[in-house]
Amino acid sequence: MAGNSFGQLFKLTTFGESHGLAIGGIIDGCPSNLLIDANFLQQEMDRRKPGQSSITTQRKESDQVEFLSGLFEQKTTGAPIAFIIKNSDIRSQDYADIKNVYRPSHADFTYEKKYGIRDYRGGGRSSARETAARVVAGAIAKLLLQKNSVSIQAYVSQIGNIKLNKAYQELDLNIAEQNIVRCPDAQKSNEMIAEIEQAKKEGDSLGGIITCIIKNTPVGLGEPVFDKLHADLGKAMLSINAVKGFEIGSGFSAISMKGSEHNDEFVLKNKQVKTKTNYSGGIQGGISNGEDIYFNIAFKPTSTILQPQHSIDNTGKEVMLEVSGRHDPCVVPRAVVIVEAMAALVITDHFLRNKIYST
Amino acid sequence: MAGNSFGQLFKLTTFGESHGLAIGGIIDGCPSNLLIDANFLQQEMDRRKPGQSSITTQRKESDQVEFLSGLFEQKTTGAPIAFIIKNSDIRSQDYADIKNVYRPSHADFTYEKKYGIRDYRGGGRSSARETAARVVAGAIAKLLLQKNSVSIQAYVSQIGNIKLNKAYQELDLNIAEQNIVRCPDAQKSNEMIAEIEQAKKEGDSLGGIITCIIKNTPVGLGEPVFDKLHADLGKAMLSINAVKGFEIGSGFSAISMKGSEHNDEFVLKNKQVKTKTNYSGGIQGGISNGEDIYFNIAFKPTSTILQPQHSIDNTGKEVMLEVSGRHDPCVVPRAVVIVEAMAALVITDHFLRNKIYST
Amino acid sequence: MAGNSFGQLFKLTTFGESHGLAIGGIIDGCPSNLLIDANFLQQEMDRRKPGQSSITTQRKESDQVEFLSGLFEQKTTGAPIAFIIKNSDIRSQDYADIKNVYRPSHADFTYEKKYGIRDYRGGGRSSARETAARVVAGAIAKLLLQKNSVSIQAYVSQIGNIKLNKAYQELDLNIAEQNIVRCPDAQKSNEMIAEIEQAKKEGDSLGGIITCIIKNTPVGLGEPVFDKLHADLGKAMLSINAVKGFEIGSGFSAISMKGSEHNDEFVLKNKQVKTKTNYSGGIQGGISNGEDIYFNIAFKPTSTILQPQHSIDNTGKEVMLEVSGRHDPCVVPRAVVIVEAMAALVITDHFLRNKIYST
Amino acid sequence: MAGNSFGQLFKLTTFGESHGLAIGGIIDGCPSNLLIDANFLQQEMDRRKPGQSSITTQRKESDQVEFLSGLFEQKTTGAPIAFIIKNSDIRSQDYADIKNVYRPSHADFTYEKKYGIRDYRGGGRSSARETAARVVAGAIAKLLLQKNSVSIQAYVSQIGNIKLNKAYQELDLNIAEQNIVRCPDAQKSNEMIAEIEQAKKEGDSLGGIITCIIKNTPVGLGEPVFDKLHADLGKAMLSINAVKGFEIGSGFSAISMKGSEHNDEFVLKNKQVKTKTNYSGGIQGGISNGEDIYFNIAFKPTSTILQPQHSIDNTGKEVMLEVSGRHDPCVVPRAVVIVEAMAALVITDHFLRNKIYST
Repeated sequence: MAGNSFGQLFKLTTFGESHGLAIGGIIDGCPSNLLIDANFLQQEMDRRKPGQSSITTQRKESDQVEFLSGLFEQKTTGAPIAFIIKNSDIRSQDYADIKNVYRPSHADFTYEKKYGIRDYRGGGRSSARETAARVVAGAIAKLLLQKNSVSIQAYVSQIGNIKLNKAYQELDLNIAEQNIVRCPDAQKSNEMIAEIEQAKKEGDSLGGIITCIIKNTPVGLGEPVFDKLHADLGKAMLSINAVKGFEIGSGFSAISMKGSEHNDEFVLKNKQVKTKTNYSGGIQGGISNGEDIYFNIAFKPTSTILQPQHSIDNTGKEVMLEVSGRHDPCVVPRAVVIVEAMAALVITDHFLRNKIYST
Repeated sequence: MAGNSFGQLFKLTTFGESHGLAIGGIIDGCPSNLLIDANFLQQEMDRRKPGQSSITTQRKESDQVEFLSGLFEQKTTGAPIAFIIKNSDIRSQDYADIKNVYRPSHADFTYEKKYGIRDYRGGGRSSARETAARVVAGAIAKLLLQKNSVSIQAYVSQIGNIKLNKAYQELDLNIAEQNIVRCPDAQKSNEMIAEIEQAKKEGDSLGGIITCIIKNTPVGLGEPVFDKLHADLGKAMLSINAVKGFEIGSGFSAISMKGSEHNDEFVLKNKQVKTKTNYSGGIQGGISNGEDIYFNIAFKPTSTILQPQHSIDNTGKEVMLEVSGRHDPCVVPRAVVIVEAMAALVITDHFLRNKIYST
Repeated sequence: MAGNSFGQLFKLTTFGESHGLAIGGIIDGCPSNLLIDANFLQQEMDRRKPGQSSITTQRKESDQVEFLSGLFEQKTTGAPIAFIIKNSDIRSQDYADIKNVYRPSHADFTYEKKYGIRDYRGGGRSSARETAARVVAGAIAKLLLQKNSVSIQAYVSQIGNIKLNKAYQELDLNIAEQNIVRCPDAQKSNEMIAEIEQAKKEGDSLGGIITCIIKNTPVGLGEPVFDKLHADLGKAMLSINAVKGFEIGSGFSAISMKGSEHNDEFVLKNKQVKTKTNYSGGIQGGISNGEDIYFNIAFKPTSTILQPQHSIDNTGKEVMLEVSGRHDPCVVPRAVVIVEAMAALVITDHFLRNKIYST
Repeated sequence: MAGNSFGQLFKLTTFGESHGLAIGGIIDGCPSNLLIDANFLQQEMDRRKPGQSSITTQRKESDQVEFLSGLFEQKTTGAPIAFIIKNSDIRSQDYADIKNVYRPSHADFTYEKKYGIRDYRGGGRSSARETAARVVAGAIAKLLLQKNSVSIQAYVSQIGNIKLNKAYQELDLNIAEQNIVRCPDAQKSNEMIAEIEQAKKEGDSLGGIITCIIKNTPVGLGEPVFDKLHADLGKAMLSINAVKGFEIGSGFSAISMKGSEHNDEFVLKNKQVKTKTNYSGGIQGGISNGEDIYFNIAFKPTSTILQPQHSIDNTGKEVMLEVSGRHDPCVVPRAVVIVEAMAALVITDHFLRNKIYST
């Protein structure tokens, strides 16, 4: 069972390699009669697009989405929704020199050993190019969630050692999309941009943290015991290229707290059962409790750097690898929309799954 | 689609509530002709058992596993393996006083809202009692992995603020099972035990970190793009009660490193392709590369404490909740075997999935 | 991926061998708050039970169902429902003489070759004893369907060469359960019984046809293009031991009709869109259209006979096999409730799946 | 969970409507390093193509397959294989007159009720145009099976009342592809063609039977108890448009046989365990036994006819429907390759699933 599908009832299957004819996907299980807002969809694509600012790779991709099926007069019909994004600006010859070499911390070695064959052009299937298909599906999921009042927003909270030391409640999240690093703090965003520009100059790369906030989920999403809502969110995030860690609510900071501090006491607010604190991150026993869901995701520094590195080629010889050309010093700002897309897929899937219990 | 199954080819489905007649599960997809070592299985159960030491709950459970099917003359037959563990020492009356109250940071509220009905006895399905079934299946998975030379070992690396500041390579992991807190450092383990005893006295609780090491996996486990090996490990760990975070390899510490530091250069060792460093944690592009797989899991402090807490009952009235009786100040030492079990389920499942590509 | 689970949202996983400690199953995905009527459940079990009449095997099984989980005060909680049926009246020694021999048209040979091991006692996992678990799950599905006004009834329409030459609309189906062969025609049922008694005397066996009628399904059940409602019904029926054929609506008789005869014209009845004829069998394009769903299932004559047969043993020697002891000359009357159970599982599963499209 | 995917390990997901931009699919789980023979693939497409002879619809479709991913230098890479077939010769205006009318025995009514919206152009998703994607995937599956010596061949054995009264062993199956009706008997094929031409003249339609033979499967394919090999074959066949019945081996004719006649005695042939007869159709206990697998599939007469029919429109008014234009009097000859494709998908999937048990 290969792993190119995600979700149970709202199921996305993706395909495509970095330098093939096209990438894309099929969404199976989208409820019918959903109006697909093409403008919104393209905006989401543009948030992920390479070349959108001075701090990302200058590879140009038009990222135009074409729908092949599942829509009739702009509405979903209940049939599978297939879409493709043609690859353009493909310079496969750029990769001829690495075709026999395993780039450090890339997937070249593992793909070649697993499959006995490797499409080396641009990383083939292991390229983050594939995440464009996730953004398309995520945008459609967001449209469905909007109709149910659920909102999802992610932002950059750390780049390298530059850290935003504020909880999300203290921030104006609207600011995030107003700067190219997508950090909702003007001062910090400038520091982050400077940090990335410095790494770019050095031919080096940086990692960071994205924080994601989901508001207004109904109580009841999540399926114990294995498909707990945060377990599915965690898997979704860890499936994104370069992600090394995930924490929900209090996360790793819970360790230094005692139960008497960490427990979220129940209180009444407007006659509704709410919690006083929200260390649980909106999920208890694996099921959403109606409070904000929030989580952090750690991204490693990008593996492609422009400095020489030791490696091995596929004949078993030691080589010195030197990559030149385009380079993305920090993918974290562009990954914000991917994080939101994966969150939207998880929440939508559980929204549909929870319908079993409605009477 | 309810969430009580885990795995694709080696599939565990669990059932059972804390105070029902029995808990248990069915394993479907276990290869045939595997000898089930009953002693090993019981040892694993004993590592999870409550009441095993002074620092855990004193609830007694015999935790005797009965196999109902799938074995013939101690060997697996390829038929589904069903097993039950009868519940004993059930004091349901202990729970009569909380039957209408939502315990803070427990699943009482979310279960009642999701399902419209709640088995309040001992937390019902949300009880960690359920993890006993995972240990049974994990033990069988371990037997299969042993035949393929894969080993899995987890240990406690932090309790509250007491932290083991050593990498796993610097430790003698054999020491871990020689103390009741399962920390592979004599000095630190004593400090941790003292910390737990103090919390116990205060009717409070503590969290911690478990580190898990998987050695000798073949190259090739993991299915891009969604079922990356660490994504499935992450989901597995986050599905364990009280887990708040997961990080693979360098994890959250990757953020403060540059690509030039973090990349794992390839080198030849004994004519084999190996990596000089292992920040990747044994997984690249979602596929195992043959290096050690290692990850950390954060556990929150247990939600059950013996101090008074504010809450709400199911008629919407504010109440003061005071729980008495048995209490587990820190579940982390007992969770070590659960972490190993879930890791074993993931690795075994991917071992079988990877067979597609063998020719 | 082993094949012991059935259904997507209402999922049954079964376990158990003919001569193990118990058989049983887990139902995952049953909506909560469904009252389980224990009397109804036992009645259904009794309809399948061996030894219920002079024309079935005299093997005695108490067929008492014990629920281990998922119920609280007789209602489903949304947690997985586990149940077991202990095996009694096990005479494994009866099977010592066939332990090395492959019984013709049984699964002995294929199981041994596939798994490299065989639980030969009573056919092990391949025994029809397993269908008892299906009847339990089917009974619960029926309770859910009853709340939604759907009814399912099957009956015997042919035994050997004795055929009931009437369409179901011409019959009083209530008569079916009043005779031991479950045929809704007094005259024919007597002939069928005589036929079975004759086969019993000869140590031979008979096959037959079961017809199943499902009334009052809502319009909309079935998921094109692969999970068409009749495709899932067909798979369900073909998974029952001894079934060799399935036809929906007009079935094989459609071949000798022209389109102008076979098409079901639409008409208005009580202002509702109905069809004048129903050759489609209540399903069009794979989706229920609200008309009666009806289908036929062909059962081969039971493989166990008391006459000598040529065979091979597992050392490759030709042997003469002579089975003595208990023997079921015709399983068709007892299979009526199994057919209904599988139909109920399919309809319930699609009922839940169809909820995706409700707005 | 929508139903547009088929298979567990070799999984096909299809998309596309009759008059959308394209139809196509994704195959996930195809083993790597399989050489895709483009000529063979196009031959298979041509066998299904409309307009190939005087007895089929004259709609023209180029049916050119474009692969978008998963291949590198003509070989599979282990990545998902996406392919599209653009729709051409689309005359959507032909359908304007039926846009509000439910065509008898078509899916118009059920789709509109299920989804609340209908793409009426050419039947939308319910069109048999979708089966072209199955043929692509089936061709790839056949290439994999060829490497493992398995062969699959189907042929027409009945059209209307013209029946081929011979068992497949008595026929020269090579003749089948030499006539336009795909019947391996020169005399009968002429009679069938005449029958179809007569129906065409009358604006009427005919059904028929396709017989399929699978040779050289290894012993061991099929997963009891629900995913028996013939249960999965049955579902596959019943998911094809216009199929009303399926029978494996002796099928419905088993009913009039006694166990002593029907049982397949084991014998030694060339020191191998074989069966003397093969009423089982190559499958025992749901698992292939190495004998030929054979089965029959009943197709109803096509629903589109050129005669006036009573119907209802979507405002609830009774109307007289008269369809003109292109018309397929009998789809059975073109369905031969679809049957083979679905058989290839099932056998390939079970081939991969069976690898679990190899040691």
